[in-house]
Amino acid sequence: MGKAIPMVELWRGGLLESTHLGHAVICDEAGQIVEAWGDPGRVIFPRSSCKMLQALPLLETGAADAHGLTEAHLALSCASHQGAAIHVEMAGKWLKDLGLGEANLRCGAHEPLDHAERDRLISHHDKPCQLHNNCSGKHSGFLTVVKHLGVGPEYVELDHPLQKAIKASFEEVTNETSAGWGIDGCSAPNFACSVTGLARSMSAFASASEDGNTRQKAMHRLTRAMATYPELVAGEGRACTELMRAMGGKVAIKTGAEAVFVAIIPEKKLGIALKIEDGNSRASEAAITAILARIGVLDAAHPAAQKRLPAEQRNWRGLHTGELRLSAGFL
Amino acid sequence: MGKAIPMVELWRGGLLESTHLGHAVICDEAGQIVEAWGDPGRVIFPRSSCKMLQALPLLETGAADAHGLTEAHLALSCASHQGAAIHVEMAGKWLKDLGLGEANLRCGAHEPLDHAERDRLISHHDKPCQLHNNCSGKHSGFLTVVKHLGVGPEYVELDHPLQKAIKASFEEVTNETSAGWGIDGCSAPNFACSVTGLARSMSAFASASEDGNTRQKAMHRLTRAMATYPELVAGEGRACTELMRAMGGKVAIKTGAEAVFVAIIPEKKLGIALKIEDGNSRASEAAITAILARIGVLDAAHPAAQKRLPAEQRNWRGLHTGELRLSAGFL
Repeated sequence: MGKAIPMVELWRGGLLESTHLGHAVICDEAGQIVEAWGDPGRVIFPRSSCKMLQALPLLETGAADAHGLTEAHLALSCASHQGAAIHVEMAGKWLKDLGLGEANLRCGAHEPLDHAERDRLISHHDKPCQLHNNCSGKHSGFLTVVKHLGVGPEYVELDHPLQKAIKASFEEVTNETSAGWGIDGCSAPNFACSVTGLARSMSAFASASEDGNTRQKAMHRLTRAMATYPELVAGEGRACTELMRAMGGKVAIKTGAEAVFVAIIPEKKLGIALKIEDGNSRASEAAITAILARIGVLDAAHPAAQKRLPAEQRNWRGLHTGELRLSAGFL
Repeated sequence: MGKAIPMVELWRGGLLESTHLGHAVICDEAGQIVEAWGDPGRVIFPRSSCKMLQALPLLETGAADAHGLTEAHLALSCASHQGAAIHVEMAGKWLKDLGLGEANLRCGAHEPLDHAERDRLISHHDKPCQLHNNCSGKHSGFLTVVKHLGVGPEYVELDHPLQKAIKASFEEVTNETSAGWGIDGCSAPNFACSVTGLARSMSAFASASEDGNTRQKAMHRLTRAMATYPELVAGEGRACTELMRAMGGKVAIKTGAEAVFVAIIPEKKLGIALKIEDGNSRASEAAITAILARIGVLDAAHPAAQKRLPAEQRNWRGLHTGELRLSAGFL
């Protein structure tokens, strides 16, 4: 786990109850480390935090434009959405427009995080389908490439042309040879890189010009899509959505399973990546919020920031039980 | 966080993805440390893992017998139940028999973890009540003492006679002056102690004779009640319930929020306590299961043990994605 440092702590009654260790890196336009905490070389799985990297072939092959995808589709292709009606319907229509359907997805089904949709399914004795999977937008993007290139339907296999293209893009933008790969919750391959490599790739997105080469244009469009449609990237009440709204469309951020978080900050040409060692998202959300506030792109007083910044904890009856705090020495 | 050691790790594609650090202590009949990992002096909040300690006044004041409580009631008083019909109905009837009702509880309401009951509430457009709170059995026990002693109704206040009695029992059985207190999720005070103090208290329960003094009799009855009614202590599918069943009623175990776990092993007169620094229960469940298997009271091949022991992880489509592993150097 390298030299992880304490980042976030839960205190109760004036005593330290729980501790979260982590690593974080900020990279500049040149891909150089501006600031780092913990072990910047810690090799991690970005999980869903790298969905914008996985979406590069969607634009670079010309698949997105050939199929008339809108900026909203691009945002959904980078999403870990909560399976609300807005997400499920959009993914369903996208597949239909491709002449495909839910059965073509390879992400599996799970109960939606969105309570309204969950409750609707329960009340109708209905079961979640693959469209409810938080990755169904990413997989709809994958299927758009599959359709466009006329390649085989088993698009999550490591040796599928799509995954080969993703790996190549991933290694180019992180500027690292991936240390390995694993299978993600949604069955797609997930390529490992260092925290620095992930931050570097985010700084590349942050620095990409809309007048640049194919890669730069793709990175620019994906960043703008995420920042413009925050409700599609996650959903109501979620950290990515609320914090992107709070930053007024100027910054794109993305969470990943096991407590990874990234940020793309075009106005400063900075990229950020962080990983909490234990995989707990209460800590990754608190840490990324604190970093964004410190570098001046997020107003710490905004309700969305206040909701995630280390703050007091209350129980079911509204009683103060303790506080989440940033660890001494971090920020 | 003291000298926590790596205990449980998540691996994916042959690479370390996440790490959980922790502390654990096994104490014998004399309250001495038999084995320890991490920092045995780490002061923690036991949270719900000390419900059997909080239930001592229920027996020692004579309240339980005066109100005809059964062994099942005693089990429910030590429970973090999942708000299934069996738990909600039993707590409701208990309060009714006391001439009280749901409104007398001070635990607050939250959605039940039990899916059947959750789905029933959603389908009926009904809301959870305080009986669904995982602590409603503990609070029903508290109210039994309140009724028996004729003391005030605000029984979760620190200076209430019940909480004073609990604190005195807690310090006697842990053999420590509590380092402080906090307010628990259920609004009751929760007293801090070292991991060793908590393990020592569990060894006192493990060693208590049914022919001993009032304290010993109370500890013996509570241990037996928990081990005899595992379905009341947590619920179907839960670690406490399934592992106690797997051990055939010979061992009582209890989880607590923020990844605390304890075990009472009468046949060996041993008590165990453990705390994972980051509060993640996937790690505390894996670690306690591994310890129980290693000391020979749990068959590692039993399905309930296999379910929690570090093992392979599968995703929504059943694909192997990685493994939870015990850290090198732990067990």
